[in-house]
Amino acid sequence: MGRYIYFFKEGKAEGSTKMKDLLGGKGANLAEMSNLGVRVPPGFTISTEVCTYYTQKGNYPEGLNKEIRENLKKVEEITGKKFGDAVNPLLISVRSGARISMPGMMDTVLNLGLNDRAVEGLAKQTKNERFAYDAYRRLLQMFGNVVLGIKGEEFESILEKKKKNKNIQEDVDLTSEDFKEIVVEFKKLIKNKKKMSFPQDPFKQLEMAINAVFASWNNKRAISYRRINRIPGHWGTAVNVQAMVFGNMGNNSGTGVGFTRDPAIGENKLYGEYLINAQGEDVVAGIRTPKSLSKLKEDMPEAYEELLEVTQKLEKHYRDVQDFEFTIEKEKLYLLQTRTAKRTAQAAIKIACEMVQEGLITKEEALMRVKPEQLEQLLHRRIDPKAKVEVLARGLPASPGAAVGKIVFTADRAVEVANKGDKVILVRQETSPEDIHGMAVAQGILTARGGMTSHAAVVARGMGKCCVAGCEEIKVDEKNKKFEVNRCIFREGDLITLDGSTGEVMRGTIPMLEPELSGDFEKLMKWADEVRTLGVRTNADTPKDAKIARELGAKGIGLCRTEHMFFGKDRLPFVQQMILADNREERDKFAKKLEPMQKKDFKEIFKEMEGLPVIIRLLDPPLHEFLPNYENLLVELNTLRLQNGNKEKIAEKDKILQRVVTLREINPMMGHRGCRLGITFPEVYKMQARAVFGAAAELIQEGVKVYPEIMIPLVVNERELSILRKEVVEVAEEVMKNKGIRFEYKIGTMIELPRAALCAGKIAKFADFFSFGTNDLTQTTFGFSRDDAEGKFIPIYIEKNIIKEDPFQVLDQEGVGELVKIGTERGHKENNNLEVGICGEHGGEPSSVKFCHRVGLDYVSCSPYRVPIARLAAAQAKIEEDQS
Amino acid sequence: MGRYIYFFKEGKAEGSTKMKDLLGGKGANLAEMSNLGVRVPPGFTISTEVCTYYTQKGNYPEGLNKEIRENLKKVEEITGKKFGDAVNPLLISVRSGARISMPGMMDTVLNLGLNDRAVEGLAKQTKNERFAYDAYRRLLQMFGNVVLGIKGEEFESILEKKKKNKNIQEDVDLTSEDFKEIVVEFKKLIKNKKKMSFPQDPFKQLEMAINAVFASWNNKRAISYRRINRIPGHWGTAVNVQAMVFGNMGNNSGTGVGFTRDPAIGENKLYGEYLINAQGEDVVAGIRTPKSLSKLKEDMPEAYEELLEVTQKLEKHYRDVQDFEFTIEKEKLYLLQTRTAKRTAQAAIKIACEMVQEGLITKEEALMRVKPEQLEQLLHRRIDPKAKVEVLARGLPASPGAAVGKIVFTADRAVEVANKGDKVILVRQETSPEDIHGMAVAQGILTARGGMTSHAAVVARGMGKCCVAGCEEIKVDEKNKKFEVNRCIFREGDLITLDGSTGEVMRGTIPMLEPELSGDFEKLMKWADEVRTLGVRTNADTPKDAKIARELGAKGIGLCRTEHMFFGKDRLPFVQQMILADNREERDKFAKKLEPMQKKDFKEIFKEMEGLPVIIRLLDPPLHEFLPNYENLLVELNTLRLQNGNKEKIAEKDKILQRVVTLREINPMMGHRGCRLGITFPEVYKMQARAVFGAAAELIQEGVKVYPEIMIPLVVNERELSILRKEVVEVAEEVMKNKGIRFEYKIGTMIELPRAALCAGKIAKFADFFSFGTNDLTQTTFGFSRDDAEGKFIPIYIEKNIIKEDPFQVLDQEGVGELVKIGTERGHKENNNLEVGICGEHGGEPSSVKFCHRVGLDYVSCSPYRVPIARLAAAQAKIEEDQS
Repeated sequence: MGRYIYFFKEGKAEGSTKMKDLLGGKGANLAEMSNLGVRVPPGFTISTEVCTYYTQKGNYPEGLNKEIRENLKKVEEITGKKFGDAVNPLLISVRSGARISMPGMMDTVLNLGLNDRAVEGLAKQTKNERFAYDAYRRLLQMFGNVVLGIKGEEFESILEKKKKNKNIQEDVDLTSEDFKEIVVEFKKLIKNKKKMSFPQDPFKQLEMAINAVFASWNNKRAISYRRINRIPGHWGTAVNVQAMVFGNMGNNSGTGVGFTRDPAIGENKLYGEYLINAQGEDVVAGIRTPKSLSKLKEDMPEAYEELLEVTQKLEKHYRDVQDFEFTIEKEKLYLLQTRTAKRTAQAAIKIACEMVQEGLITKEEALMRVKPEQLEQLLHRRIDPKAKVEVLARGLPASPGAAVGKIVFTADRAVEVANKGDKVILVRQETSPEDIHGMAVAQGILTARGGMTSHAAVVARGMGKCCVAGCEEIKVDEKNKKFEVNRCIFREGDLITLDGSTGEVMRGTIPMLEPELSGDFEKLMKWADEVRTLGVRTNADTPKDAKIARELGAKGIGLCRTEHMFFGKDRLPFVQQMILADNREERDKFAKKLEPMQKKDFKEIFKEMEGLPVIIRLLDPPLHEFLPNYENLLVELNTLRLQNGNKEKIAEKDKILQRVVTLREINPMMGHRGCRLGITFPEVYKMQARAVFGAAAELIQEGVKVYPEIMIPLVVNERELSILRKEVVEVAEEVMKNKGIRFEYKIGTMIELPRAALCAGKIAKFADFFSFGTNDLTQTTFGFSRDDAEGKFIPIYIEKNIIKEDPFQVLDQEGVGELVKIGTERGHKENNNLEVGICGEHGGEPSSVKFCHRVGLDYVSCSPYRVPIARLAAAQAKIEEDQS
Repeated sequence: MGRYIYFFKEGKAEGSTKMKDLLGGKGANLAEMSNLGVRVPPGFTISTEVCTYYTQKGNYPEGLNKEIRENLKKVEEITGKKFGDAVNPLLISVRSGARISMPGMMDTVLNLGLNDRAVEGLAKQTKNERFAYDAYRRLLQMFGNVVLGIKGEEFESILEKKKKNKNIQEDVDLTSEDFKEIVVEFKKLIKNKKKMSFPQDPFKQLEMAINAVFASWNNKRAISYRRINRIPGHWGTAVNVQAMVFGNMGNNSGTGVGFTRDPAIGENKLYGEYLINAQGEDVVAGIRTPKSLSKLKEDMPEAYEELLEVTQKLEKHYRDVQDFEFTIEKEKLYLLQTRTAKRTAQAAIKIACEMVQEGLITKEEALMRVKPEQLEQLLHRRIDPKAKVEVLARGLPASPGAAVGKIVFTADRAVEVANKGDKVILVRQETSPEDIHGMAVAQGILTARGGMTSHAAVVARGMGKCCVAGCEEIKVDEKNKKFEVNRCIFREGDLITLDGSTGEVMRGTIPMLEPELSGDFEKLMKWADEVRTLGVRTNADTPKDAKIARELGAKGIGLCRTEHMFFGKDRLPFVQQMILADNREERDKFAKKLEPMQKKDFKEIFKEMEGLPVIIRLLDPPLHEFLPNYENLLVELNTLRLQNGNKEKIAEKDKILQRVVTLREINPMMGHRGCRLGITFPEVYKMQARAVFGAAAELIQEGVKVYPEIMIPLVVNERELSILRKEVVEVAEEVMKNKGIRFEYKIGTMIELPRAALCAGKIAKFADFFSFGTNDLTQTTFGFSRDDAEGKFIPIYIEKNIIKEDPFQVLDQEGVGELVKIGTERGHKENNNLEVGICGEHGGEPSSVKFCHRVGLDYVSCSPYRVPIARLAAAQAKIEEDQS
């Protein structure tokens, strides 16, 4: 440890804004403001290292007390006051201040230095006895609460009793005599509770207050705040000791908080509020209604002008919007704090763009000023923040946006009601692929079970549709078409509103705001595209998704899943017959019936993506997903038998049951799926390849530019790929020969198993491209089944700090990421022309996108509404790289 | 390509035994024998490179024909005969010979060089017209079949017709006139079938025969043989052209095959059989019963003595048991082939030990002479090879050994019947952990479903108990206590026999041989232990297993699974109540009831392993495995409801069902199990730790030497381990404090997920040892659920040559192995003292054991009966390393 304490006064400070680690955010900015010549009450900051020392050893480092006294002396010299003095006492504040702001988490003591003698001095100096005793009782109250741990309400109840006795409502109506009596009673309370008198020695007060701030670093709420916000416990807090200034010294005094620009909409004008004749805590407490800062111009024109000037200076200096606190003591303006302002996505974009225009920041800086994940706010309808809502239950915020509609409990019913022109919310215990048609027509989806990557969540995000998943408070009774929540019954047709960004389920129709993509948004995205080197594609299974994604800037499709097409009402019967077929010929027969339908699907998607590559993944999920539910069949059959049902029907059901039994798996995620189906049932993949190339050929003959790419899922080695590649190539040649044309196409594979990543070199010899399927890769690398883990133990793991984030949301760079890196390196080594992308959910998550840039991927692919997020994150990754 | 042809004659050859790649096994050994001065008919070998050239180009390399003629001339010079000569014709054989013997897969033509003129010469020279025409018809027959592709039975039927017409039974009764007529008819047949005459030009015959041998390399049966035996297609075959010698030139001629030692039991004496006045093909054809070689001493004493001398010379030269072929032509002995003899495990051990004693080979060589996997034959009872059996069905050879017993269909019934003193075979659709008590008392287990690593297979191997799994031919009807196979019904109490080494299910009681571990076995194992540096432990869950494993040489337990203990009849109710508990207190209550039982288990195991380390793995499987089957509950409840059953019972069942629903998982293998249980339900792990340390403490106080080690399963990162380690340490300290003693213990973890291997460095900081759980690691690295994959697609993958072996049987060194390597390296880097082992099934598979040695593991751990295999494989790994 070097020095313990850093002094600051107007015009000069020993610290600066760069020393946040040592001085905390508040201390560093107080130092910076001082250096800038901004009027700041003089004071000093005890470094975070002292806190760490104190926490570990339980006492101060040697010499600290001496340094404190020396620095306090400097404050006395500047202010001309004396700590604890009976004539002109110096009052000080003691505030915590960590590296990162932890609002309300730690402790503050004001008016320190008052005692029975000094209060009299203060009264005389200020010629305001009431003010002096009010200040004293405030000290007793804060000290008693914060330092001595007496409950705040004990003090409050004395205050309330006094007001009641005097039959008055507000503190302002209390007289100096009242406060004197209150001071006596407060002191008595302290003595009663703590078996000690309130310390009259101001240095004792200071030492105890500093210790209390240090200790508050490890109070319960600070620890849990840190855990939630991933702030390391060893950082510690600094302590800021500063001369008091008073906004409550009459009507030429006041206090307020403000922003240099509007943090909600980004407008470039001073924004904030203030109270005349009040201390900072009064503004926060909300007892009196503060006025808009624009009114200060009338109340105190000079102070207003100075504030305007000072804060603009700060904004220019920091080159970003500032969030500041100030106090005016007898018309003299003091700044107490400044920091970078938090802002909405809309404001962030507007401010960034305007600051570029103003020449304040570069385009690159503007790009760094907007958090990619914030963009999601802009792309969805949202609940009007002013609306009154009754929250019925909270689930997982599985897919953002808001939706209102009539409750329905089945996919079929959803379609019926939607066809009548009504908006519906599909409510299910959990969804399955059989519900796709209902999800497609619903405004939003609500499920009682399932995690952030449950079927409902993934599909809804893909559709850009609002979804609240895993809302366990609601008890869904699909059979009787109702759900219960907190003893309230909701039935089919009742109106509810979902907020997929918060996970809230609300009663009735709530007003909403439509998404607005301003010119600034377009401008920023353009800049992002100019900067970034990482490509952005989309995961889209339908022409509609493809269209939206293209509008949002996707340059092609990175993943088009074909299985969803199999669930169409007109297809499922053929799919089921194909699966139930006993032999290859019959299977082929039904596969061929599906071919024209698949071809039509592909043509529409190709058209939407004209001129851009479209990667189509061949069938991936296990076949039993297309057959009726096993448990239902079991119970149905049991019922039929017990009730001596129709024999033929029993036989028929039994046949299906037997097939389901054969196909069903103990761990389907690691079972007979992906290219394993392609190897064992070649008819299905061949049919799909014929549909893809057939669609491409027909469109090319119509003059449409089409770039079909076929992706083989779930390979473990190069043999699978070489066999299937050969079959696909044969189909392509056959189609081209039949149509009498030639076209370009690619064949690649997903790398979604650890073995595939490790053996990527060999696999790359048979692949034109790799696409990392990081959803599955995360499952196998962790051995976490996402269907099970997200509901059962991931939340507990996060709570216990075993993992930092849900690895299905944020790519695990250490484990899964190493496999991505290995796979990319080994693939490139054996195949120079290999194109490498990612198509897991992570392709739209900013930190994961940045990782993809760093390890040298060519593109990310994400759901349509995440495309802008990926574009911005990719640009930021490039900027960060250039700066490092 | 250098030269095409390598000549050999008695005393001198251009090739040698080292040139197997070029000359094939047969050619190389003919050359070697020639060099040794062994009498071999002169000839030459056309190299495998010519085959490869011919296969690729379709014609001979330039100059080959010239070389053939030159070499043939040399043979003529040596024999004094002339190819195709009308007076003294040279007859030759044309035989294939690949690098590795592919018995019966490729083609041979004998007596080449005969034609209408030469046959007369041969008749005169040999003064045996019958012999000459017999030889000619043999040529026509073989040439017609092998070279021209006419079916063998077409020739046979002519032969049969002739015998029938003459009313005789045997070929020997045919006269030279008969053969002359047969020759005419054979030639006619060839002309009819092939529209060409049998070529009279002997060189044409030779060229066609050589081409046929080359072509036979790619015939269907050779290709599939190569696929099965992993022989690369590009090797090609050599062709051996050699002067004919005849064992059918009268009673002073003969032919035979033999071994220098008995290949069945290893006895050191000439072993084999021969026929007087016969050609080699007659011995193979089995028409006449050959005599034992010992009889040759009487028939032809001189030839016998020479054979003895020559073959002993060969054995000494090759330093290994030889498998040879010979022909005696008019009392003159010729060796036609020699090669290393295949042998049984028993013979291999005896021979190896005796050869060391004889000073022929070193101990290291002896160790290399026994195939580790062969040892399994010795450790189990086996079906008497002489027994007559009726095979009912074939399943997977899931656990070796043989068993006979009465059929039972439930675990409970197995216990009842076994308690009466009857031997039982437990027959199930598939087994589950609830069947353990039945499996424990059964002689063997037969299941209709499940693969080589199904529950039945794994548990049976662990118990050293015979098991046939996945025997799909049998239709099990557990309810009606019967199974059907091939229209036969077997009921409870019927006797069957299982052969777990072949997968055969047999009717009735078959005689068996008991395992015999000879002194030679002990000797060899001792040598292995002296050589090897890799440790060998065992996977044992019971005192009985521990005892067996220790007797078989295990130095400690590498994996003791605790979950099997939970299935005991006296425990399961408490386990279920523990799981069904609503809160921590209640869970703890039932956990505490289990503690004394677990402690007792551990004490017994510790006692068996006194002085050796015992690694106990804390609870691993998902909790729902301990609860009743979901589907059964569903149907039961449905039945109860439809039949208006007892309301309380319905409510009770429903409660259990609800809990099962909550616990059940979509992919349980990647679900809430392993240390995830330890994190979420700490009571269970703490109880187990108390039981382990309590058991250790009590034994130590009794003076028993105990080394407890606790293993935490399924970690993904260091945080899990650090949390659980801390809890286990606390328990250990508490136990030691209570007992007033101190003891050593270790805490380690399984590395069984790809992420754990990748992050092994960090994890190693909290681990005293790693144990690679390669079963699970294989599952996640491949994304193969073993329960599903082994039945559904692994067999197809092996058949299609996509994977070489089942990765659950043989460690996948490329993928899974790389993770083992990475995990070991990173672990050691961060923790010098880290002990690293493997406890997956692979720990007892020879090639995997060798891999473990090479990557620097400290030990392997395997099921008790595989311990000797691992010991030998470990020794071989060390020897191979020293030699490389």
